[in-house]
Amino acid sequence: MIDQAETLAWDAATGQRERLVATRRMFHRIAEPGFCEYQTAAGIVERLQTLGYDVTTGTDAMELSAAHSVPEHDTEVWFERAAARLERPELIASMRGGATGVIAQRRFGPGPTVAFRFDIDALPIQESADQLHTPAREGFRSEHDGWMHACGHDGHITLGLGVAAALDELSDHAHGTVKLVYQPAEEGTKGGAAAIAAKGHLDDVDLLIATHLGLSADRTGSVACGATFMGTFKYRATFTGMPAHVVLAPHTGRNALLAAASAALNLHAIAAHPDGWFSLNVGRMTAGTEQGVTPARAEIDFGVWYQSATAQDYLRRRCIEVVHAAGALHGVDVDLQLTGEAPYVEADPILAERLERVAQRIPDVGSTARVVICKAGEDATVMMERVRSCGGEATYVLVGSALASGHHTPTFDFDEASLPIGVAFLTATALERMGDGWTES
Amino acid sequence: MIDQAETLAWDAATGQRERLVATRRMFHRIAEPGFCEYQTAAGIVERLQTLGYDVTTGTDAMELSAAHSVPEHDTEVWFERAAARLERPELIASMRGGATGVIAQRRFGPGPTVAFRFDIDALPIQESADQLHTPAREGFRSEHDGWMHACGHDGHITLGLGVAAALDELSDHAHGTVKLVYQPAEEGTKGGAAAIAAKGHLDDVDLLIATHLGLSADRTGSVACGATFMGTFKYRATFTGMPAHVVLAPHTGRNALLAAASAALNLHAIAAHPDGWFSLNVGRMTAGTEQGVTPARAEIDFGVWYQSATAQDYLRRRCIEVVHAAGALHGVDVDLQLTGEAPYVEADPILAERLERVAQRIPDVGSTARVVICKAGEDATVMMERVRSCGGEATYVLVGSALASGHHTPTFDFDEASLPIGVAFLTATALERMGDGWTES
Amino acid sequence: MIDQAETLAWDAATGQRERLVATRRMFHRIAEPGFCEYQTAAGIVERLQTLGYDVTTGTDAMELSAAHSVPEHDTEVWFERAAARLERPELIASMRGGATGVIAQRRFGPGPTVAFRFDIDALPIQESADQLHTPAREGFRSEHDGWMHACGHDGHITLGLGVAAALDELSDHAHGTVKLVYQPAEEGTKGGAAAIAAKGHLDDVDLLIATHLGLSADRTGSVACGATFMGTFKYRATFTGMPAHVVLAPHTGRNALLAAASAALNLHAIAAHPDGWFSLNVGRMTAGTEQGVTPARAEIDFGVWYQSATAQDYLRRRCIEVVHAAGALHGVDVDLQLTGEAPYVEADPILAERLERVAQRIPDVGSTARVVICKAGEDATVMMERVRSCGGEATYVLVGSALASGHHTPTFDFDEASLPIGVAFLTATALERMGDGWTES
Amino acid sequence: MIDQAETLAWDAATGQRERLVATRRMFHRIAEPGFCEYQTAAGIVERLQTLGYDVTTGTDAMELSAAHSVPEHDTEVWFERAAARLERPELIASMRGGATGVIAQRRFGPGPTVAFRFDIDALPIQESADQLHTPAREGFRSEHDGWMHACGHDGHITLGLGVAAALDELSDHAHGTVKLVYQPAEEGTKGGAAAIAAKGHLDDVDLLIATHLGLSADRTGSVACGATFMGTFKYRATFTGMPAHVVLAPHTGRNALLAAASAALNLHAIAAHPDGWFSLNVGRMTAGTEQGVTPARAEIDFGVWYQSATAQDYLRRRCIEVVHAAGALHGVDVDLQLTGEAPYVEADPILAERLERVAQRIPDVGSTARVVICKAGEDATVMMERVRSCGGEATYVLVGSALASGHHTPTFDFDEASLPIGVAFLTATALERMGDGWTES
Repeated sequence: MIDQAETLAWDAATGQRERLVATRRMFHRIAEPGFCEYQTAAGIVERLQTLGYDVTTGTDAMELSAAHSVPEHDTEVWFERAAARLERPELIASMRGGATGVIAQRRFGPGPTVAFRFDIDALPIQESADQLHTPAREGFRSEHDGWMHACGHDGHITLGLGVAAALDELSDHAHGTVKLVYQPAEEGTKGGAAAIAAKGHLDDVDLLIATHLGLSADRTGSVACGATFMGTFKYRATFTGMPAHVVLAPHTGRNALLAAASAALNLHAIAAHPDGWFSLNVGRMTAGTEQGVTPARAEIDFGVWYQSATAQDYLRRRCIEVVHAAGALHGVDVDLQLTGEAPYVEADPILAERLERVAQRIPDVGSTARVVICKAGEDATVMMERVRSCGGEATYVLVGSALASGHHTPTFDFDEASLPIGVAFLTATALERMGDGWTES
Repeated sequence: MIDQAETLAWDAATGQRERLVATRRMFHRIAEPGFCEYQTAAGIVERLQTLGYDVTTGTDAMELSAAHSVPEHDTEVWFERAAARLERPELIASMRGGATGVIAQRRFGPGPTVAFRFDIDALPIQESADQLHTPAREGFRSEHDGWMHACGHDGHITLGLGVAAALDELSDHAHGTVKLVYQPAEEGTKGGAAAIAAKGHLDDVDLLIATHLGLSADRTGSVACGATFMGTFKYRATFTGMPAHVVLAPHTGRNALLAAASAALNLHAIAAHPDGWFSLNVGRMTAGTEQGVTPARAEIDFGVWYQSATAQDYLRRRCIEVVHAAGALHGVDVDLQLTGEAPYVEADPILAERLERVAQRIPDVGSTARVVICKAGEDATVMMERVRSCGGEATYVLVGSALASGHHTPTFDFDEASLPIGVAFLTATALERMGDGWTES
Repeated sequence: MIDQAETLAWDAATGQRERLVATRRMFHRIAEPGFCEYQTAAGIVERLQTLGYDVTTGTDAMELSAAHSVPEHDTEVWFERAAARLERPELIASMRGGATGVIAQRRFGPGPTVAFRFDIDALPIQESADQLHTPAREGFRSEHDGWMHACGHDGHITLGLGVAAALDELSDHAHGTVKLVYQPAEEGTKGGAAAIAAKGHLDDVDLLIATHLGLSADRTGSVACGATFMGTFKYRATFTGMPAHVVLAPHTGRNALLAAASAALNLHAIAAHPDGWFSLNVGRMTAGTEQGVTPARAEIDFGVWYQSATAQDYLRRRCIEVVHAAGALHGVDVDLQLTGEAPYVEADPILAERLERVAQRIPDVGSTARVVICKAGEDATVMMERVRSCGGEATYVLVGSALASGHHTPTFDFDEASLPIGVAFLTATALERMGDGWTES
Repeated sequence: MIDQAETLAWDAATGQRERLVATRRMFHRIAEPGFCEYQTAAGIVERLQTLGYDVTTGTDAMELSAAHSVPEHDTEVWFERAAARLERPELIASMRGGATGVIAQRRFGPGPTVAFRFDIDALPIQESADQLHTPAREGFRSEHDGWMHACGHDGHITLGLGVAAALDELSDHAHGTVKLVYQPAEEGTKGGAAAIAAKGHLDDVDLLIATHLGLSADRTGSVACGATFMGTFKYRATFTGMPAHVVLAPHTGRNALLAAASAALNLHAIAAHPDGWFSLNVGRMTAGTEQGVTPARAEIDFGVWYQSATAQDYLRRRCIEVVHAAGALHGVDVDLQLTGEAPYVEADPILAERLERVAQRIPDVGSTARVVICKAGEDATVMMERVRSCGGEATYVLVGSALASGHHTPTFDFDEASLPIGVAFLTATALERMGDGWTES
């Protein structure tokens, strides 16, 4: 009976309480960069196979050409490192080159397909060694110098494994198929999601639930059932001109620095769009070598964050227009690379309302929100858009958690008590759709 | 005998002394803009026909499509004005539309062809009414409000008529053909010279002498026998974007003001050329209408002055590149009109030396210079380049004259005593080539 | 009984139906610019005095130094014109110099003070002569060439006179004081409102109701009871440099054009503010005279429209900073004049709800809105802010009217059937506060 | 007899032929950066002391605060390296901190003071290891990886030691005092010359002769007796703003990247100066860190090269003005450091003519030039200006030498046969002033 779904989920979640903490701490220790999460992915694969899920990895899971910024050199370095440390290095053989996504599937007879999205990458932050910082004090600080799970993705991995175990336990009550999608490289919206979506893994999904711990849900026991993220895209523009001796032959130079400077000024001068706020930033520029030589090379990194689907095409068109014309101003070649991207996707208020009713029946869920606005981009929106375009439903839920300090800081930590609550809520959302109440429509 | 040429010329010139002054004052009174010199041209034609010269006018004299900036509306207004005032309006019928150049020719038997260039246009300056200003005090101030012969072109016209009369008187001593070329629209290098050159009138010229009173030759009795002017080109760029209500639909605008502003900055930032100094100036900009509307139209006027033939192509290429790319920065259409142009043409030191010897034999010529550098553009360089490209010789001479104040000022005036000296010098330069010393080579 | 207020108001309004149309058409014919509304103001004064109101005009009504952009020359021209046409020119003697506001007051015994704001200026638009355009066809097209009531302010004047007459008729039911405030120069937020507020006329007001016909309320019979306008400010920046001959002495120039161009680019590049959307536009620029002279003078007009009180200080500080620094870039003096300004003032939802209940009881009011967002600035917000700062309440109501074409177009016209509905609604809002239900609190 | 001076000099020079080559090769091997020439200076000191010269070093030789760009960290690294390798490390104790200049003096009785300037620093160029490159083939390639004598300063050191030895040999023929000034850090005009001049060592000099091998004198046996170098100055501008999260709080950022971009554009837009050509280049820019953060730091390196003393003040004033105002545009702090500087100093044609007569009497001097124009800056002009301002004479001579490839290239090499010719010429120029022909005036 569907009325029992939340109770079943709650029991299945709380039974794993200690295991969830242990799992989280293990993954916290092996923080890895985006497209380099080899040890992490191996750990996920091992656990899911044990639970009887069909696991897809490597280029079967991802179309890497659809990603934006795979770091070729770094991914090889981290691959070697992982291969040397793993007991079963064969687990990552298929992932070489950055294909670190993992898709686990389990069929519980006829019924709808429900998918969950979890992200697995860490951040280039040196984790605090302060004894007030729990991971330091309790001995699970990152072993990878300069890299840290400072956004809670270690918790997301853990939630996914908890849901997998709970559904395994509740398999008699599940009808249909569940997909657990672990994506690399969420930070910077570098295209981990796009690479998985491009492979078609989401095209048969009836309901996609993406998840984050914390953010604006910063109390343990709170839950938000829909979230609207900003759209974003990021570019690197490279300007290639011609060097010249500025005394003997200044006229033969083609000045990449002035091209990039004009690009920066005119990008920032892009006019407002009536359908919503946006922020554009040229965040980095390097150009030239020394005073006596016309700067022959320049590079700018810029990003845009916006809050409406209609503004997106306008902003992108203008950015491309400005950068190319700025090169032409000084006879300079321009190469424009998309380095990150996630569309603006609005929350589905009807779905959110449905999930809110589920949340309200979970013990220990103290407060719920239907839809929240998040001032950030999220790679998951790529998947949400894909699912919706194929006729499915998609939402983004926040699992509330008290935070030790802000996301992306060296002392970030979340409240591990939120893990069983999150597992219960996510399991119950799956059962809301594929539980005993399900009937073929 | 050639040794007598200077004496003959001197006598022929000084005999006209009073007539030269009267002529100059008559033309001073009827100052007219470039391509609008109808009354002026009619006066020139009448006098030259009386002296027995063959006169060519209108589109027989000029290829107007080769000019840069014929002011369509103004030229019609001045045509009507002149037609209403002239006793013989039929004299200007052929000139309608701006073809106000006059070419007078006289053949004195076999021999070389010597041409003189005189310019005839006035300036948009309100002439001083101060009684210290001779034209005001002596009653020959400009009758055309807002227009004034403030650069001495009234004197140039007079020099040309004086040479015509002197050669008529000395026809027994002349061998070959003389051409007196009166060009409109020298100021701003708007293409009066180009329109005459395009018609081929200079292609058979063996020696071209262009003339100016004053400039750096600011003492009566001095003479410079060669002058190097700067090259110059001028453009008007018109940017056409799209207006938009900046609150309701700013994203639909295409901003011509920002395009023009970027053009101005990047034009000024054009890199140095090793072969010589140049100055570039965006001298005027207008854009847009009011705060609440995206500026849909902008216009800039800019010019470049340079001192080397090799720099010219570089500068022009860069200007064109910058203006078009600046439009593209904001998705704005660009129209670029050449509004003025005169090439850099170096003085011919050997010819200058020859003429210096002539000058030194003229009574009342107190000092001579061989070659001077003039920091300005000159439309005559178009003709000089044409003559040289056809195998002829060309020079630019300065007839020294004490000046009441600087060129292009409301109290500009020159010393009328310089007129007979100029006529003598110019007549003698013609005789140096086509006088009794001439023998078929 | 308060329950009857709407019926009383409705009767008093519909009784004036024909007079309202005649009044509106009379004022439509004499469209005048902001700070030049002499004939208009004289007409208002005459009618209000007839109805027994105390009328304040001229510098008793306005502190002109608090306005931003009084057009000195134009206001004198329009004064002379009006003086020549009026039967009683003494009516405008006190207004000379632009003080064309009118404040009419009537005391109906003890009670609260309720004020209404009406604007009276026209727009620089040539009114359509098309026979499909009702004012043209029915003979009340603007007699002032190039100026037109294209925003409905003629209707606002009429509403005010209708309210004055209705309250006069209902004086037995009114308790307290009513103030009818007619402000000049609303268009461009040039400071007509500020000049009246500065005089203190609003400091004792308990309830201020500002009014507009149409806008988003584009159906006759609809009413909006609160409106949030954008904040706005407008500046004219004048850059004064030094001219120079760009060939002889370019280094002595100080380039106002490049200063203004840098200002334009960097103004447009002002970073986003998290508290709300804004649009900034440099809408007009003029600079320099001709190619050969360093531009010594430049002028830009720019405006900002924003949607949050917190963004205002940030935007203003940055604008001032950019303009002054842009002058300093080229050693150019900067003069910055505020030419228009109106703060962001949010609607009062509680007051709006109260008025909505009033509106719903007016016959012929078919639909009501509580609060609408208007994407424009409004000079009335200056008055609303003043009233609130003195402890009073303020709102902005829209009187719905079918429109022939958009505001600020040559064929703009509104449905005159909206006039009695508007008079009824406004009169009823006054009675809601100062009617029979009033008791001293 | 003065007539014998050149013969004496020639004999004294050719006698050292082999020693000169060995000396040059030794110094070539130990190429060191500017202000780091410790081994080099130690070698110079040892040889000069052996020849009986009074040697001044360290802060007695240099006022380091007058230099522009002493590299604090690097100079310490090179000091340690040199100290470890030298047999007599006490020779460099006084030089620590970058004071690597050496001044050697010898008095030959009463008479004028003649000084020579030699520069001793190397360039950040990896020397070619190609066997066609003589230093590689013959085993005297630079031992300091990444640093190379690629401009011939090893030859200059050698010329100086050769002159010292020749004058020692000819001491009976010398009257007065000779000063050999060895300056560090000529490359980049970083102020080695200024630091020595500031100490007053040049204030009693009657004749200063600065020297360079090669440049436009690229044939062995040619000599140029005067050279006019360009003036130059170089700056590093550092912009310090405020970082901000560009989504959450863009308005709190102060954008150093846009400040630097505006500086770059407006520096390049500095107007022409009538007194001569110049080239300005912003050669390097770095700004910001990543897309999501307002760039809080930016740095630009720029330089100007000019050809007239009058343009210098104008250019410097405008550069300073632009950089500071560009910071103010974005509320960003600016730090402007002079990193290099050398004034424009014209050759002395009369002195050059005198030296040309000397040169023409030296055997093996095949061709002479009086004055050449060098399109580059030279630190020595600081010294020349100082000597002239104290009433002395100064010139810059080029000792011709066939070159293997261009200056500042990895295969640069000069013809060692030019060394004795140079020693002879320089010795003879000293004797021209202080030789037997000298008489107290």
